[in-house]
Amino acid sequence: MTAKQQLNIEEIAHWINGSVVKGGGRSQPVYNPATGDVISHVSLADRAVVEQAIAAAEAAFPAWRDTPPVKRAQVMFRFKTLLEQHSERIVAAITQQHGKVLHDAAGELGRGIEVVDYACGAPQLLKGEHSKNVGAGIDSWNEQQPLGVVAGITPFNFPAMVPMWMFPMAIVCGNCFVLKPSERDPAPALILAELLKEAGLPDGVFNVVNGDREAVDTLLHDARVQAISFVGSTPVAESIYRTATANGKRVQALGGAKNHAVVMPDADLDNAVSALMGAAYGSCGERCMAISVAVAVGDDVADQLVAKLQKQLGVLKVGPGSDNSNDMGPLITAEHLARVRSYVDLGLQEGAELVVDGRGLTVPGSENGFFLGGCLFDRVTPEMRIYREEIFGPVLCVVRVTSQEEAMELIDRHEYGNGTCIFTRDGEAARYFTDRIQVGMVGVNVPLPVPVASHSFGGWKRSLFGDLYAYGPDAVRFYTRRKTITQRWPSSSVREGAKFSFP
Amino acid sequence: MTAKQQLNIEEIAHWINGSVVKGGGRSQPVYNPATGDVISHVSLADRAVVEQAIAAAEAAFPAWRDTPPVKRAQVMFRFKTLLEQHSERIVAAITQQHGKVLHDAAGELGRGIEVVDYACGAPQLLKGEHSKNVGAGIDSWNEQQPLGVVAGITPFNFPAMVPMWMFPMAIVCGNCFVLKPSERDPAPALILAELLKEAGLPDGVFNVVNGDREAVDTLLHDARVQAISFVGSTPVAESIYRTATANGKRVQALGGAKNHAVVMPDADLDNAVSALMGAAYGSCGERCMAISVAVAVGDDVADQLVAKLQKQLGVLKVGPGSDNSNDMGPLITAEHLARVRSYVDLGLQEGAELVVDGRGLTVPGSENGFFLGGCLFDRVTPEMRIYREEIFGPVLCVVRVTSQEEAMELIDRHEYGNGTCIFTRDGEAARYFTDRIQVGMVGVNVPLPVPVASHSFGGWKRSLFGDLYAYGPDAVRFYTRRKTITQRWPSSSVREGAKFSFP
Amino acid sequence: MTAKQQLNIEEIAHWINGSVVKGGGRSQPVYNPATGDVISHVSLADRAVVEQAIAAAEAAFPAWRDTPPVKRAQVMFRFKTLLEQHSERIVAAITQQHGKVLHDAAGELGRGIEVVDYACGAPQLLKGEHSKNVGAGIDSWNEQQPLGVVAGITPFNFPAMVPMWMFPMAIVCGNCFVLKPSERDPAPALILAELLKEAGLPDGVFNVVNGDREAVDTLLHDARVQAISFVGSTPVAESIYRTATANGKRVQALGGAKNHAVVMPDADLDNAVSALMGAAYGSCGERCMAISVAVAVGDDVADQLVAKLQKQLGVLKVGPGSDNSNDMGPLITAEHLARVRSYVDLGLQEGAELVVDGRGLTVPGSENGFFLGGCLFDRVTPEMRIYREEIFGPVLCVVRVTSQEEAMELIDRHEYGNGTCIFTRDGEAARYFTDRIQVGMVGVNVPLPVPVASHSFGGWKRSLFGDLYAYGPDAVRFYTRRKTITQRWPSSSVREGAKFSFP
Amino acid sequence: MTAKQQLNIEEIAHWINGSVVKGGGRSQPVYNPATGDVISHVSLADRAVVEQAIAAAEAAFPAWRDTPPVKRAQVMFRFKTLLEQHSERIVAAITQQHGKVLHDAAGELGRGIEVVDYACGAPQLLKGEHSKNVGAGIDSWNEQQPLGVVAGITPFNFPAMVPMWMFPMAIVCGNCFVLKPSERDPAPALILAELLKEAGLPDGVFNVVNGDREAVDTLLHDARVQAISFVGSTPVAESIYRTATANGKRVQALGGAKNHAVVMPDADLDNAVSALMGAAYGSCGERCMAISVAVAVGDDVADQLVAKLQKQLGVLKVGPGSDNSNDMGPLITAEHLARVRSYVDLGLQEGAELVVDGRGLTVPGSENGFFLGGCLFDRVTPEMRIYREEIFGPVLCVVRVTSQEEAMELIDRHEYGNGTCIFTRDGEAARYFTDRIQVGMVGVNVPLPVPVASHSFGGWKRSLFGDLYAYGPDAVRFYTRRKTITQRWPSSSVREGAKFSFP
Repeated sequence: MTAKQQLNIEEIAHWINGSVVKGGGRSQPVYNPATGDVISHVSLADRAVVEQAIAAAEAAFPAWRDTPPVKRAQVMFRFKTLLEQHSERIVAAITQQHGKVLHDAAGELGRGIEVVDYACGAPQLLKGEHSKNVGAGIDSWNEQQPLGVVAGITPFNFPAMVPMWMFPMAIVCGNCFVLKPSERDPAPALILAELLKEAGLPDGVFNVVNGDREAVDTLLHDARVQAISFVGSTPVAESIYRTATANGKRVQALGGAKNHAVVMPDADLDNAVSALMGAAYGSCGERCMAISVAVAVGDDVADQLVAKLQKQLGVLKVGPGSDNSNDMGPLITAEHLARVRSYVDLGLQEGAELVVDGRGLTVPGSENGFFLGGCLFDRVTPEMRIYREEIFGPVLCVVRVTSQEEAMELIDRHEYGNGTCIFTRDGEAARYFTDRIQVGMVGVNVPLPVPVASHSFGGWKRSLFGDLYAYGPDAVRFYTRRKTITQRWPSSSVREGAKFSFP
Repeated sequence: MTAKQQLNIEEIAHWINGSVVKGGGRSQPVYNPATGDVISHVSLADRAVVEQAIAAAEAAFPAWRDTPPVKRAQVMFRFKTLLEQHSERIVAAITQQHGKVLHDAAGELGRGIEVVDYACGAPQLLKGEHSKNVGAGIDSWNEQQPLGVVAGITPFNFPAMVPMWMFPMAIVCGNCFVLKPSERDPAPALILAELLKEAGLPDGVFNVVNGDREAVDTLLHDARVQAISFVGSTPVAESIYRTATANGKRVQALGGAKNHAVVMPDADLDNAVSALMGAAYGSCGERCMAISVAVAVGDDVADQLVAKLQKQLGVLKVGPGSDNSNDMGPLITAEHLARVRSYVDLGLQEGAELVVDGRGLTVPGSENGFFLGGCLFDRVTPEMRIYREEIFGPVLCVVRVTSQEEAMELIDRHEYGNGTCIFTRDGEAARYFTDRIQVGMVGVNVPLPVPVASHSFGGWKRSLFGDLYAYGPDAVRFYTRRKTITQRWPSSSVREGAKFSFP
Repeated sequence: MTAKQQLNIEEIAHWINGSVVKGGGRSQPVYNPATGDVISHVSLADRAVVEQAIAAAEAAFPAWRDTPPVKRAQVMFRFKTLLEQHSERIVAAITQQHGKVLHDAAGELGRGIEVVDYACGAPQLLKGEHSKNVGAGIDSWNEQQPLGVVAGITPFNFPAMVPMWMFPMAIVCGNCFVLKPSERDPAPALILAELLKEAGLPDGVFNVVNGDREAVDTLLHDARVQAISFVGSTPVAESIYRTATANGKRVQALGGAKNHAVVMPDADLDNAVSALMGAAYGSCGERCMAISVAVAVGDDVADQLVAKLQKQLGVLKVGPGSDNSNDMGPLITAEHLARVRSYVDLGLQEGAELVVDGRGLTVPGSENGFFLGGCLFDRVTPEMRIYREEIFGPVLCVVRVTSQEEAMELIDRHEYGNGTCIFTRDGEAARYFTDRIQVGMVGVNVPLPVPVASHSFGGWKRSLFGDLYAYGPDAVRFYTRRKTITQRWPSSSVREGAKFSFP
Repeated sequence: MTAKQQLNIEEIAHWINGSVVKGGGRSQPVYNPATGDVISHVSLADRAVVEQAIAAAEAAFPAWRDTPPVKRAQVMFRFKTLLEQHSERIVAAITQQHGKVLHDAAGELGRGIEVVDYACGAPQLLKGEHSKNVGAGIDSWNEQQPLGVVAGITPFNFPAMVPMWMFPMAIVCGNCFVLKPSERDPAPALILAELLKEAGLPDGVFNVVNGDREAVDTLLHDARVQAISFVGSTPVAESIYRTATANGKRVQALGGAKNHAVVMPDADLDNAVSALMGAAYGSCGERCMAISVAVAVGDDVADQLVAKLQKQLGVLKVGPGSDNSNDMGPLITAEHLARVRSYVDLGLQEGAELVVDGRGLTVPGSENGFFLGGCLFDRVTPEMRIYREEIFGPVLCVVRVTSQEEAMELIDRHEYGNGTCIFTRDGEAARYFTDRIQVGMVGVNVPLPVPVASHSFGGWKRSLFGDLYAYGPDAVRFYTRRKTITQRWPSSSVREGAKFSFP
């Protein structure tokens, strides 16, 4: 049975050792957020199923570890080609289960493929450093050896891209991978699994287990799992970091965000507004790099900014993601819709000025979809919960400050430090901002400063737990263990005395 | 009062914000292990003292962070010169408090200075990667920004070198450092502090707190401390890793070892024996890279090896470290002496063959020193506790196997994976060994394969907790936070539409 | 008209600005070396045609230079896929015009594709180095900007691979390329051109001009050509290096070789003989990395080696390359066959012992093909011309020496220093050899130590003229110009005095 | 006899094999440019003397090549310390023979020491790349082996710094060096030689030959010299590049410059003027990175700029370099003074507006010194020879343009492309400029964008001949030859067949 056939069917199962594996006891519904319909059910792996996947990965490891990097890279080259050939199918699966608009899903897939492209460079990326003559006749070099079985636990908001932040690099480094994708939109991961097999990846090197907390706990506690990559909310990220490090694993756990865009008085306001519209409302705000706070420097800027955003929101097209002319689709679930709406209610209670209220939106023909119109708050203050907490919905808060310095202090006081950006034409303002701000990913006139695949993704403060970031150069270090060899070939004619000193 | 004056005096105190700081409530004696005499007392910092050090470090951070790397490196250049000028004094302090022979202490200091040399390369090491045109007109680069306040907790066995594995790299990366050295031989660290000040390091950038568990706990729980570097025993390393990661810090915790040397039938046995004598008995076996197990491949090799080692042990010179003609000095404390002796007793009970018994040694004129003669066990088996546990004394165990494969299985079953080496002339044997063995630092005809300063130090399995190793390239990644900037300068003549897709 | 259609037709023309361009005045025949038949004619570009190609490249440069590296890399990804899809066709063209056996032609193509794979890593390879705070508030970084129009001049022996050593890296770095392949087997290059276009490469970025000295001279003297990559014989390489550098171009000119294999007494002789057979007689010895001298250390080794080689030569299958069961095909032309035969005659005159004489070979059904059987000389001495000169045919010379040292002195006295290898099991012998030998590419038990695509290809002494080698990391440096930017954004509140000192 | 004693004495001789060597037949006077007095005579090496130096270097090479990089670096560490200790003496020698003001000479020395600092990082810089498993069981790595004897030919304007751009990197890479400094101010180089010896450099590794064309020609033609580094004028650079490459050497030949500073309408004019004053008149304009053309964008900017420069020139302090309160000292020789004056005369003839005329300057008490006051031309046009040619004196030309685009076209049409800078606050203007301009070293609000020691120095177009730049990462590549080793250890149990295909 192919992954394609699994869509719109009763059971979305697991992928273990190169085959679909059903079962695991429990299951739960999967929705089409644009219609509210249950379109499938996903099996929730129990401990036995997860252990089966781990065992498959462990069994595949010795041969995969010994496969030369240049050959591992060939699998990635073929995978890339297959991803491009099957892009429509993957994009459709993303839109169907996540809800985002097709063009946005295509963007997601494209950024995932870029990581595959980067992984194709394995022969370059896995080079060690060789030191000739560290002493007379002694050479030393390091090798980047794979860890063994590693796991990824990924969120609903990028059902294809975030897994692809992880497994291409893990696999090309010689590891075997167990992915637990979000149980809300599990289909894309299974298509990826199928394509990896078609690309020639040996069975067992990549496995998918769908599931919930039981599956996660099994991964966190199984001694065979050497490393955990996680993307999700901060409380879960922190808990996973604690648990998995306590179990001796290496962990990178990426959490939440509240990304601020600073709009300076010299900014090109029309460009800034266009940028903010996409960054705040694209994918319904369900992105860890979404801009959820616009910081206007000066009331003059603020007034213009709010007016222009308000105008743009008036023409924002909200509807099913399957209609590519829409700008924004539904939220992921009814529960999440309710949660985001409650934040809008809260903002009003807290005294923020609701300039645009998206709560009344109905999408004709999709009345049961999980839609919310774009919302815009002005005069938000740092004490408000709508400012302090991650809403993860189409809600943009405008905060007014009087100087760049004040804007930066605001950002630095927030618990999160994922992304931020500044809109300005001034070189000094930009350099001062990028140098000082306590945030890991910084844009200058770039609203979503997601690092490209040849750099690494990671936030600061409570947005990331761990030392090493996702994909890019850090991924090589994360997914390999350093081995250093010091070698000397004794000349048979030389007799040496014992050295009791430290060499 | 200078650090020099503190030696042989009543109280060894702390170094905070560029000055000696006394107090902290409790204190404990410091011994000269070669005589058994109490030569000083060391103050044990309470929480308040440690917090004073952290506060000093935090206050010094903003200016030090902004000091260009090339200028930070100048401090390291001057520090190197001062270390060389003051080497006799430092070496004497090591020998007096730790007990190792002067030539060995000089070796320790030399390896520490090499890390300072490497730190002098900061302008090269701190380069980020710059990507022009990641998109049309968009550039992206990363900066390696310092973490802030970081701490090091170091063991007694290398009172100068192990701190120098940490702070030169941490400091040159722009961090401020709090060192808690071993309370058994605290003097060398204070000399280093004094010389750093003389080298021009601003006050507060480097601080030393002497202490015990209370000091450690304060460092592990204080939110201002961003990272912990630890070297010590595995149980403590594991505990520190769990506690400090649970508190959101990045941690590298290096633990214990049981390093095996494989002696192949084609090895040059005389060279191997010379190498083993130094690696097993140098510094009284109190090194995490000491060879404590010799694995002889074949009884023929084993018989010769044991005979030659026995002969060499017969002429091993044991005595006070201050006499540079000695090969080996005392153990660190009376308690540790008793513990190591009890392992020798245990080995006999477990059925190993005690070929050379060092328990009867007396050193004339140093009858109260903590001396133990070199001990050699033959026919040790993997079940014995003297094989399984780290003894950290001058006790070498010979295990007999019949093949390289069996030797490697033995090593890989051990819980530790710090260092190992193979003695052979055969290229294939060496490559097979270095490729497969589950150990982080591997020597080929090099008994102590401590990576040079331009590589990084770290073991595998339960010998290291964390992702990143000590000193070398990993230290730069450990002591810095990655910030990625994506920059675009909009042309004023270009008007852009909003992009709701993922870019 | 497609490149495919050009085969076996009257005229093989040029490829300029994305189209086939005929003409150029003169032409010359192209042979099938296995039959001796003229299968086509190749146009020889006059100056006007070459200038047309240069002009096309120059016109394409501004847009290609501004194409982000990640997009240039996408062309290489597609090109790789197309090369794999069209491999049979390319391999057939190689075999038809060059003569080598199909499996060998496939090997050639495979090594060429590996360079394309490496070029796909452009976003990684083109990173510059970014230094934050080289002074207070001053940042500096470098960019690797393309040169403009660059040219490659390539030999007959690898009509696909050697061009692919050059243009994938040149193009992905942002340059536009003019290739002048060998006029003896020009078809493969034209297929590559066609596939590049199909892969989406903009017209003008890659151009092919067939030709002879007039075409070469035009490339060497045209001021628009910024760099020349050449592979061929040493006299031509040297002349091209002198001429093109005198014209201000950067040049890498790879010349001839006489590669020695040292066979040590401890070598596994059967493996060494197998390796030598392929390395000496594969592709009829027409490889710059072919082993043409076997240096036997000791008469015992020499006697066995010669006997085993003689036996293997007895079963060497020589015949048309289109029959994949053959080991060796014909030489490239009747002239070259005559030249190689004359060397065999010369060897006899010079007193070498012709153990196997391939001159009498006839291949049934291919009597007019340019075939020569494998020849083996023993007791060759350094004074003989068959030792000193590059024969470029299936002739292996055995030189007898008494020690490794003597073998190495022999190698180091030769004018060439392209490749060499040693057969041994001994780690020390290998390390001594690789460290000291004055040769650029060194194998240990690897007879053809051609660096993989992630390293760079280049010999020493008179085997290469220039600083930077072919493909790999050196290619990035060769095909780009370093630009270093030092940037400071002045704070408007700061007034600075003039500094007359050097900063 | 020490180098110190040589100052103010009859003969400045050579430094060969660790000792002062006199003779060479001819000699010529050395002047103090501030007084016009002959203060010494310098021996001019004939061919025999130069060959003696080359022979000494060649003899020293084998041992120095085998000295581990970490030990070579120790010589550089000590050299750095000695340079700092002896800085006053070196600075005094620079000022005495070159004429520049002491603070400027100190700046020169400081930049030279930075290269020594960088060279101290040799263990890091000389690392090769190690690829594990390029095929099954095959490893490959590269080594950066030194070239042998290399030479440097340096100009008068930085008698300490430019030699230090070369020899620290050459030496630390394992080469032996022959320096031919300018015969006009030869003393500083001899002090450096003496300090290198004191730092522990083995005799013969560094040698100095004073001389003129005969010495240069000997270096260019001697087959033992592997590489030439040159800094001087473009015609000589080009000639040296042609000659030395024709002799098979690798060459980097840095030539002349005409560096433009673009002043944009939004620039902070006072800062720009301060910057220009130092960049144009510092060291009397005798710097290859001096700004000799200010390009004002718009007449408004031009008028203000000229007015402010005129005012600043009114208070420019010109006098003997030994008086540290001066801004500018004398030109190097009477001949050069006459030449620069003649350019001022020419500018007037060509129709430029001489706003400030320095020709009438007399320095009281130094009437015979080679002084010229600062000169400022306005309304210079691209046709004028004072615009097209390098004057190398205190003459600043203002060219007026109407747009940034026009400024950039002007710069790109000039034959030189060494350095340039732009003064602006606008991020886009800076990015557009740095991206497009055909110049190798670009400043943004940095008037002298000399790359720091961890980057590399080199211009574009006719300002540099060769592929690789001075100091920094390029120097490692320039001063080493790449050797690539491919290694496989055959398992004795495996028998392999011959492979006739390309591997």
